[in-house]
Amino acid sequence: MKVDGVAYRTLWRQGSSVEVIDQTALPHLFRTLRLETAGQAVQAIKTMVVRGAPLIGATGAYGLALAAQADASDEGLIAAAGVLAEARPTAVNLRWAVERALKAVLAHPQSGRVDAAWAEAEAIADEDVAFCQAIGLHGAELIRRAYDGLRPVNVLTHCNAGWLATVDWGTALSPVYAAHEAGIPVHVWVDETRPRGQGAALTAWELLSHGVPHTVIADNAGGHLMQHGRVDLCIVGSDRTTAHGDVCNKIGTYLKALAAFDNGVPFYAALPVSTIDWSIARGADIPIEERSAAEVTEVSGQTADGRIETVRVTPAGSPAANPAFDVTPARLVTGIITERGVAEASREGLLALYPEQKAAAE
Amino acid sequence: MKVDGVAYRTLWRQGSSVEVIDQTALPHLFRTLRLETAGQAVQAIKTMVVRGAPLIGATGAYGLALAAQADASDEGLIAAAGVLAEARPTAVNLRWAVERALKAVLAHPQSGRVDAAWAEAEAIADEDVAFCQAIGLHGAELIRRAYDGLRPVNVLTHCNAGWLATVDWGTALSPVYAAHEAGIPVHVWVDETRPRGQGAALTAWELLSHGVPHTVIADNAGGHLMQHGRVDLCIVGSDRTTAHGDVCNKIGTYLKALAAFDNGVPFYAALPVSTIDWSIARGADIPIEERSAAEVTEVSGQTADGRIETVRVTPAGSPAANPAFDVTPARLVTGIITERGVAEASREGLLALYPEQKAAAE
Repeated sequence: MKVDGVAYRTLWRQGSSVEVIDQTALPHLFRTLRLETAGQAVQAIKTMVVRGAPLIGATGAYGLALAAQADASDEGLIAAAGVLAEARPTAVNLRWAVERALKAVLAHPQSGRVDAAWAEAEAIADEDVAFCQAIGLHGAELIRRAYDGLRPVNVLTHCNAGWLATVDWGTALSPVYAAHEAGIPVHVWVDETRPRGQGAALTAWELLSHGVPHTVIADNAGGHLMQHGRVDLCIVGSDRTTAHGDVCNKIGTYLKALAAFDNGVPFYAALPVSTIDWSIARGADIPIEERSAAEVTEVSGQTADGRIETVRVTPAGSPAANPAFDVTPARLVTGIITERGVAEASREGLLALYPEQKAAAE
Repeated sequence: MKVDGVAYRTLWRQGSSVEVIDQTALPHLFRTLRLETAGQAVQAIKTMVVRGAPLIGATGAYGLALAAQADASDEGLIAAAGVLAEARPTAVNLRWAVERALKAVLAHPQSGRVDAAWAEAEAIADEDVAFCQAIGLHGAELIRRAYDGLRPVNVLTHCNAGWLATVDWGTALSPVYAAHEAGIPVHVWVDETRPRGQGAALTAWELLSHGVPHTVIADNAGGHLMQHGRVDLCIVGSDRTTAHGDVCNKIGTYLKALAAFDNGVPFYAALPVSTIDWSIARGADIPIEERSAAEVTEVSGQTADGRIETVRVTPAGSPAANPAFDVTPARLVTGIITERGVAEASREGLLALYPEQKAAAE
């Protein structure tokens, strides 16, 4: 997508280095960082310079290409792959991408491994872009159908499942970008998404930079907007999706789904097939990460004179709790948008799109 | 209620002055301000040193006593009352309290007006305390019934409808304080309440200072906690209540009511009868105030080294919307707790408690 008219990916090869957008500086400063070693790729993942499952995976694969430049021996590559995969232990997609890249590289003689590693990393990145773009085309059709020819279609989204979380296009925001490119007038209600504020910081920055009309709102406001007919559809991402269509996504998603259901507003989750866990049937079985209380008690941002400061918003001494995700039951989900199309949020619906998963979903 | 063991009201007479808790400094600093003139009372209301409808009303009445000390003539008092009532034009309770105090004072000869003004202000404050305490006793009975003798009762609340919004006890938090005083173990989930953060700042401070167990959460978290059986009942305040039991309260209340309904968690609104608007039947008819976008895009708090700073959390250039209230339809409200008891959230239920309002509610 574009940043002030210039097309970007979130990471790309630059000679023998990798350039990434430094997401820790957003939304207040747009800058890129150069990664020259696998160790720097690990640091970029650990410090959240890059975030979002697909982008972390791609960073791992590019990291292996950087490792191959330094040491293309079996031992060197296997050791580097281990360190890269452990940069975020819970990131299934990171391990998958690093192992795929390692396997591809080890199939070559040592002299061809650097080129092979770059090629595999590029392939993983390109595939992610193609998946996200396909999600966008399927989802844009839903936005097109909601367009009455008069006023812009109002899409509400939660957290950041935009191009910054992927290599390009994003998941939940990909339909918005595709509709915007197709000339359908679209406006996005951007949930702030406390406690980490990914909506206020990242989703708003993406849409602003690409030129998509949007308005930031407190997470509390969406229900009221739906009661008053000011939301045409909701599109959110998904961290993990059960075989029955329950959607585990950033905390607060469930509340928006309830409001959408109560007001007859269609509610979609947009996701790549890799987030569907065919082995889990019940959303309630998904373990929910409890994150640091400081994310609730403190807020970071930019002062009027340009400094980045962190301020505490609670009294010293008050404890806080911080469950990071919640589960929206399939009964509240109108449909699931994947790279293959739009499925009903049910076992039957998902298997109709992915018949090859029948055995896994037993 | 208590602040570190010492009982306080939010305002009280101190000789020929009025002392108020400076709520703009909370939760980071506890200090009181001395008001010596009616003009200072007006300023305290305008700058939100005092806030909450009942407390603003009491401040207006005490302000008239300060005015009487300076000029007890008819003209002087009428002029002062006008200025006090206009300190916040939308505050119905302020106008009511100031007019009540003015009428009482003008009934006296000039020599007795200062004493009469103080007496009327004290009466208004004492009545508010008695109303709030009665709400607490009725509501505490609901908490007592939810107590299984083993684990604390978990109450979720939104915004601040505690003693800081009144003269003492509060509305939504009064049942919590009454249960706590009665020895029923109670724990409060405190919704942060973006964008203004009254929960994180004021409700948390109240509970911390009085010694009531509590945990601050992002507004997004309540639905997840209810899905997992970690909320026994919700109690919120109300800015305005229709004759049919629709509750207009701080933005985001509706989302919590939906989650409570979806999970079989009782959802109560606690309010003094003065917030019931017998002339409005449909909640959708209540006009909703749109407040400054800066409340969404900026957050204030305390830095690690003790400074108060305001930081922007959105990219410069992204617009924000800020509807301040939403309406929870009566079908989602289990009951309405008033100073007379607990009513069903319906015209019949409310009129059973307030039969004298039958004509007004036609």
